[in-house]
Amino acid sequence: MPDYRVSPLVQELPATVPFVGPETQERNQGSLFKARIGANESVFGPSPNAIQAMADAASESWMYGDPEFHDLREDLAAHHQVESGNIMVGEGIDGMLGYVARMFLQPGDTVVTSAGAYPTFNYHVNGYGGKLEFVPYRDDREDLDALIQKATQLQARLIYVSNPDNPMGSWWDAQSIESITKQIPENCLLILDEAYGEFAPPGTLPPLDLDNQRLLRMRTFSKAYGLAGMRVGYAIGNAELILEFNKIRNHFGVGRVAQAAARAALKDQAHLQRVLTQVNNSLETIKEIAVENGLMPLPTASNFLTIDCGKDGAFAAALMQSLIGKGIFVRMPGVSPLNRCIRITAGLPEELQILAETLPKVLEEVRKSF
Amino acid sequence: MPDYRVSPLVQELPATVPFVGPETQERNQGSLFKARIGANESVFGPSPNAIQAMADAASESWMYGDPEFHDLREDLAAHHQVESGNIMVGEGIDGMLGYVARMFLQPGDTVVTSAGAYPTFNYHVNGYGGKLEFVPYRDDREDLDALIQKATQLQARLIYVSNPDNPMGSWWDAQSIESITKQIPENCLLILDEAYGEFAPPGTLPPLDLDNQRLLRMRTFSKAYGLAGMRVGYAIGNAELILEFNKIRNHFGVGRVAQAAARAALKDQAHLQRVLTQVNNSLETIKEIAVENGLMPLPTASNFLTIDCGKDGAFAAALMQSLIGKGIFVRMPGVSPLNRCIRITAGLPEELQILAETLPKVLEEVRKSF
Repeated sequence: MPDYRVSPLVQELPATVPFVGPETQERNQGSLFKARIGANESVFGPSPNAIQAMADAASESWMYGDPEFHDLREDLAAHHQVESGNIMVGEGIDGMLGYVARMFLQPGDTVVTSAGAYPTFNYHVNGYGGKLEFVPYRDDREDLDALIQKATQLQARLIYVSNPDNPMGSWWDAQSIESITKQIPENCLLILDEAYGEFAPPGTLPPLDLDNQRLLRMRTFSKAYGLAGMRVGYAIGNAELILEFNKIRNHFGVGRVAQAAARAALKDQAHLQRVLTQVNNSLETIKEIAVENGLMPLPTASNFLTIDCGKDGAFAAALMQSLIGKGIFVRMPGVSPLNRCIRITAGLPEELQILAETLPKVLEEVRKSF
Repeated sequence: MPDYRVSPLVQELPATVPFVGPETQERNQGSLFKARIGANESVFGPSPNAIQAMADAASESWMYGDPEFHDLREDLAAHHQVESGNIMVGEGIDGMLGYVARMFLQPGDTVVTSAGAYPTFNYHVNGYGGKLEFVPYRDDREDLDALIQKATQLQARLIYVSNPDNPMGSWWDAQSIESITKQIPENCLLILDEAYGEFAPPGTLPPLDLDNQRLLRMRTFSKAYGLAGMRVGYAIGNAELILEFNKIRNHFGVGRVAQAAARAALKDQAHLQRVLTQVNNSLETIKEIAVENGLMPLPTASNFLTIDCGKDGAFAAALMQSLIGKGIFVRMPGVSPLNRCIRITAGLPEELQILAETLPKVLEEVRKSF
C-alpha cells in the first residue's frame, strides 16, 4: 500500500496515455517512421510566417505569455466576426475538453458520446467521475438524433459531437447540426468539436449562435493550421458561458511563443488555402492506392481518410501493425464496427509513394493469415 | 439566470486571473512598460542555444510533442541523478499545482499554506473545493514548524511550502526543510515549490529523497532558465507517486517546441551560471538603490528583491502604483504584514537606471500623502 492517499476518484483511475505517441513506437521499434501519417497532423506544415513568428518570439520567451490571450482572442474574434468575449483559448482542444468536463461534471453525472468517438474526451470524463453512455455510429456517422434522445432520457450533463467526425471522417450538413443544437436538453451542454472544420465542404459548419448557452464550439490550430506541437485550441460560445473558463483554467497555460504562432498562422489564410488543396490532392492519391489494393475508402471531410478494410477489427489491426512495422505510422478506430477500418492522414508525395509500395506486400502477407 | 448549469462547486467560484499580466496593465495605461521587473521573469533571457532550438523546432511544430516527454525526462533524470520515472513534466508549476490539487483533494479537504504565499496555488485549491488554512509568516519566513503542526492538527491533505520563498525571497537551509519532510502527517502531501531553487545559496535544497511518498518537489524552466513563455515545469518525487499524474494530466499539454527549448536550456549550464551572476549583480544594484532611498531590502535567495517600505500596505501599494504609472512594472505581496513590501525582479542595467531615476521622485510624491 502506498504511503500517500489520492482522492478515491483518482485512486480508481488507470494510469494511461490516451494516444500512444509515434515517438514511443519509434523508441520501441528502434527506428524512425518513414511516413508519419497517423496522427492527423498537417505534414504540410504551418505558415512560413508562423515559423518566423516563433523564431522571433523565441528570444522573448523569457516573458510569460499574456494570460488573457488578448491579441489572439481579438484576432480570432475578428476572424469569426464575434466579440473576443465569445472566445477562450486553451492548451489544445484536449485541454479545453478537460476544462469543460471539470466545469460541468460531478461524479456520477451522465455524459453521452458515440461509441468509438474521441478517446481523450472520454479520458477527461472518466477523470472527473462522469458516467459515459455510448450511442453507436449509424452508417459510419454519429447518430445525432439518438445522441440527443439518449441525453434527454438520461438527463445527461454533456453531449460530445465532432463534425467532421474523427475517426470516421464523416460529417453532417449545417442544417442537421443546427437542428440538434436547438434540442439540447436543459442543464446539458453540447460540445461541438470542429477540429477538422477547415477541411469540411461549405455548408458543414453552422453559423455561430452566440445566444445558445448550451453549446460550445471547439476549434484548433493543431490541424489545418499545422501547429499541433504548439497546443493552441479555442472555444467559441456565449460570452457568459465562456467566462466560466476563467474560474478554473491554467491562465498561463498557453505560452508566448504559442500565442505568436497562432496569430501568424491565422493571418495567413492564403497558406491555409494552399494546405487545403494539398490535403485534397493527397487524399485523392491515398484513395487511389486504397482502391487499387481492394480496400474501400470512406467519404471524408477531414485531412485523413478512413479506409474500410472489408474484414473485422483483427484484420485491420494486423494490417495497421504491419504498416507500422514497415515504418508507416497509421492509426485505426478502437471500437467495433468502426475498427474494420484503418485511418491514414494526408501525407507528402514521398510518404504516399512508400505507402503505395508497401501496402500491396503487407496486405498479401496479412491476408494469408485471415 | 443562465441557461446552463455548471457544477455547484464551479458556480461558487469567482472568475479571476490570479496574476494580472503586465500586458493587461500596458493596455489599460495605453503605454508599454520601460522596465519589466515585476513578474520574476529572467530578463537575461534563455540560453542562446534554447532560442536556436526553438527556431529549429518551429518548422517541426506541425507534429505533436511527445506526450511522454521521454527525452526531456531522460535529460532531467540525468541532471538530477534520478530515474526518469521520478520526473513528470507539465504546463509550468502552475499546471502541476493544479494537477496535485485535483489528485489529492475532495471538496472540504483541508490544505495548509502560509498567509501571503503563492496565490495560484490557492486558486487551484479553491478550484477543487479545498479549504485553505493559513499560517502567518514568522520573521518574513514561512513558519515550517507551525505549518506542520497545523497540518497535523487539522488532518490536512496538502501542505504548500516554497523554498526559496516567493514573495519574500527568504529561505530555509536544507536541514530545516529535511526536518519537516520527515514530519509530514499521514495521508498528507507536502508540495515543496523550488521554482527559485537555482538562485539559492548552496545548502538550501535538501538532497532528493525518492523514498518519501509524502513529498513532491517542483521545479521550473520559467525562472533561472529564462523560459517563462514556454511553460515547462516538472515534479520530482517517488516513482509510484509520479505515476499518478498519468491518470489525469493533459498528455499533450507541453508541446514540441517547449520540450526542445527546455532540453537545450538544461544542457547549457554555463549560461545558467552567467545568469546567476547577472542576477546577483542586478540585485546588488537594486539593494543600493533601495537603501539610498531609505527603504530596507530583505535578504533574498531568489531572482528578486523584496523591499520593506517601512510603512503599511497602503503605502507600499501607492508606491507600487506610482512606479507602474511611471512605466516600471513591479509587484507586491498581497497579505499583511508582508504587504509593507514591494517586490522587484532583477533587471537589465538600463532598467535599473530608470528605477534609480524614478524611485526618488515617486517616493517623494507618495510620502506626501502618508
